[in-house]
Amino acid sequence: MSLITLTTDFGTRDWFVGTMKGVILSLAPKATLIDITHDIPPGDVWSAAYVIASAFAFFPARTVHLVVVDPGVGSRRAPLAVRAAGYHFVGPDNGVLSLALRLCNAQAIHHIENRILPNPSSTFHGRDIFAPAAAHLSQGISIAKLGPSATSLIRLAWPEPTLSPRVRGSVIYVDKFGDAITNLPNRLLEKSTHIRVGRAGTQRRIPVGSHYQSVPQGRPVALAGSGGCVEIAINGGHAARRLGLRVGSPVSPVILP
Amino acid sequence: MSLITLTTDFGTRDWFVGTMKGVILSLAPKATLIDITHDIPPGDVWSAAYVIASAFAFFPARTVHLVVVDPGVGSRRAPLAVRAAGYHFVGPDNGVLSLALRLCNAQAIHHIENRILPNPSSTFHGRDIFAPAAAHLSQGISIAKLGPSATSLIRLAWPEPTLSPRVRGSVIYVDKFGDAITNLPNRLLEKSTHIRVGRAGTQRRIPVGSHYQSVPQGRPVALAGSGGCVEIAINGGHAARRLGLRVGSPVSPVILP
Amino acid sequence: MSLITLTTDFGTRDWFVGTMKGVILSLAPKATLIDITHDIPPGDVWSAAYVIASAFAFFPARTVHLVVVDPGVGSRRAPLAVRAAGYHFVGPDNGVLSLALRLCNAQAIHHIENRILPNPSSTFHGRDIFAPAAAHLSQGISIAKLGPSATSLIRLAWPEPTLSPRVRGSVIYVDKFGDAITNLPNRLLEKSTHIRVGRAGTQRRIPVGSHYQSVPQGRPVALAGSGGCVEIAINGGHAARRLGLRVGSPVSPVILP
Repeated sequence: MSLITLTTDFGTRDWFVGTMKGVILSLAPKATLIDITHDIPPGDVWSAAYVIASAFAFFPARTVHLVVVDPGVGSRRAPLAVRAAGYHFVGPDNGVLSLALRLCNAQAIHHIENRILPNPSSTFHGRDIFAPAAAHLSQGISIAKLGPSATSLIRLAWPEPTLSPRVRGSVIYVDKFGDAITNLPNRLLEKSTHIRVGRAGTQRRIPVGSHYQSVPQGRPVALAGSGGCVEIAINGGHAARRLGLRVGSPVSPVILP
Repeated sequence: MSLITLTTDFGTRDWFVGTMKGVILSLAPKATLIDITHDIPPGDVWSAAYVIASAFAFFPARTVHLVVVDPGVGSRRAPLAVRAAGYHFVGPDNGVLSLALRLCNAQAIHHIENRILPNPSSTFHGRDIFAPAAAHLSQGISIAKLGPSATSLIRLAWPEPTLSPRVRGSVIYVDKFGDAITNLPNRLLEKSTHIRVGRAGTQRRIPVGSHYQSVPQGRPVALAGSGGCVEIAINGGHAARRLGLRVGSPVSPVILP
Repeated sequence: MSLITLTTDFGTRDWFVGTMKGVILSLAPKATLIDITHDIPPGDVWSAAYVIASAFAFFPARTVHLVVVDPGVGSRRAPLAVRAAGYHFVGPDNGVLSLALRLCNAQAIHHIENRILPNPSSTFHGRDIFAPAAAHLSQGISIAKLGPSATSLIRLAWPEPTLSPRVRGSVIYVDKFGDAITNLPNRLLEKSTHIRVGRAGTQRRIPVGSHYQSVPQGRPVALAGSGGCVEIAINGGHAARRLGLRVGSPVSPVILP
């Protein structure tokens, strides 16, 4: 099997994703193409990096993960191909691959220089550089054939929670339900009764629960998230909007008597 | 062929659907995955039930239909696998499968208990329970292997139209074009000239037509719908918004001289 | 390989696209289905025609391109199948195929009359006529088997830029990033320093650049577009909204000293 996932900010109302897939299938006719999302907010490298970091490990070994959120397309930022944890990753060197690679060591990093389409555009490297590279990798072509080896890539800073004098973390992603995903590991919930959210003056204590409906409709709850970190949700509602949470909002576990 | 359809309220901007597909393809590498929709309004069990009831029968025999609209995830509601009409259905026991099963008798109903992922989360059974179950069914594993047999499932009440003293029905779904789909069978149009819509005081009589453009641009028309029941549409417009129709709005056929 | 692309205005929140795919896979179980988009504005034949014209040539030979934006469904407009440039195209005869066929000569045009589903609805020919036709073509069935040959099809007028006394073109499409794509060929940029946009009184001169980030954040730039024609963009912003551009807005290249 030859499997390629796609994560972009290209949206689904134009022909951008379709033409990338046409290019891939022209080179790798038997590839299976799976959309992770094309609805990353335009140019939002952090969101794309978090999305692919959350998804990649659920795919079979040798899957190629193609990530194109690339506001610097056409500038000097390098196109990258990376091998790590039995997968390949393809995308621009702007940090978009770095949260996935935080979870697994890169075994090889290459700049993509050998281009398949003879005159790549300066505005659509997704179609002209990244899609062909992903197709070739999915066909078993060596990553070293794509271009010269590189020793590093641009990494986004991961906001580690502080542990002392007390545990403080932050919201790192808001999903489409409005659930606010934090960087606090789920195991902190074992000893906590509540999660405190928000900045001084507007703080709220959210009770820990086991699932969304463990609190009444419309009430907030802090849960063990499916990605390994604590989530703040509202049963049947949009927690981030209702509680004023966004990426960076502080959170901390508390034990109430 | 091994075919699985997906119907969820997970949206397409995060990694939820992608990870479900990764889990499925890890277990069933040759499965073909077809999205019905991931844009069910959050937690809207009725809409999801209506969507899969409208779609399932157009797929080849042995297709597995996976439906995850599951506001009660993590609670005591059971995960279900059902065999009916040559298909398998997988989803929570909250009514979401029941409109499809209204159209065909369930031959087997099983609770899903044998889990593939060792520690299922309490917030993402789509990935941890339903996707593996669908993958196994698509691979030909017996439904009985998933868990114990059950004798019943939760059923949503279907609003049958009343037939006497006169025919009265209601809107049961509004589609993305704004067409209001009713529970009045198309055959009622043979003897009707109009469909009366709306509540007393704001009623309107919509003329029966053969297709959208059988009335002028911007005008309403009642049509034989492609799902077997009468639709109220506006040629080039959004009927539900313009006519104030929603799920439950009354409709009845009339014969004007 | 048997490859079918889909371009519609059906959206992704109902079951319309899913049932089309079910019909196709029932007839062509091994077909690979690729969505170009289902988010064409309802009934917007121009946008759909432009989208498929931009995408079709990136797919492998023998791909079937299915395009259903069909406000006249059920009226006397004919369903078409066309062979051109090694591809098949399927869609209503309302102009939606004509921009693609402007780029390659039609080798065969047929009306679709032999229907697979015995009683096609009058509101969903995508499912009942076009999807079966596309499935059959993808299986190698001759286009002549679908119905009688036709000699012409409805063509949308393509707004050629005027060349004298000076070059004047127009915006022909606005993409999801807000980039305004014009009908001015990229080669005009070789001798231009700016592109003048907008109507008299509100004109603006946009500097020519090589890529989005060749201007500061928030500033407009005129670029060689990836489809062969000049695009007006804003680095990190929505050019059409910010500059008041829409389909038809005039543009012309200028040389400033």
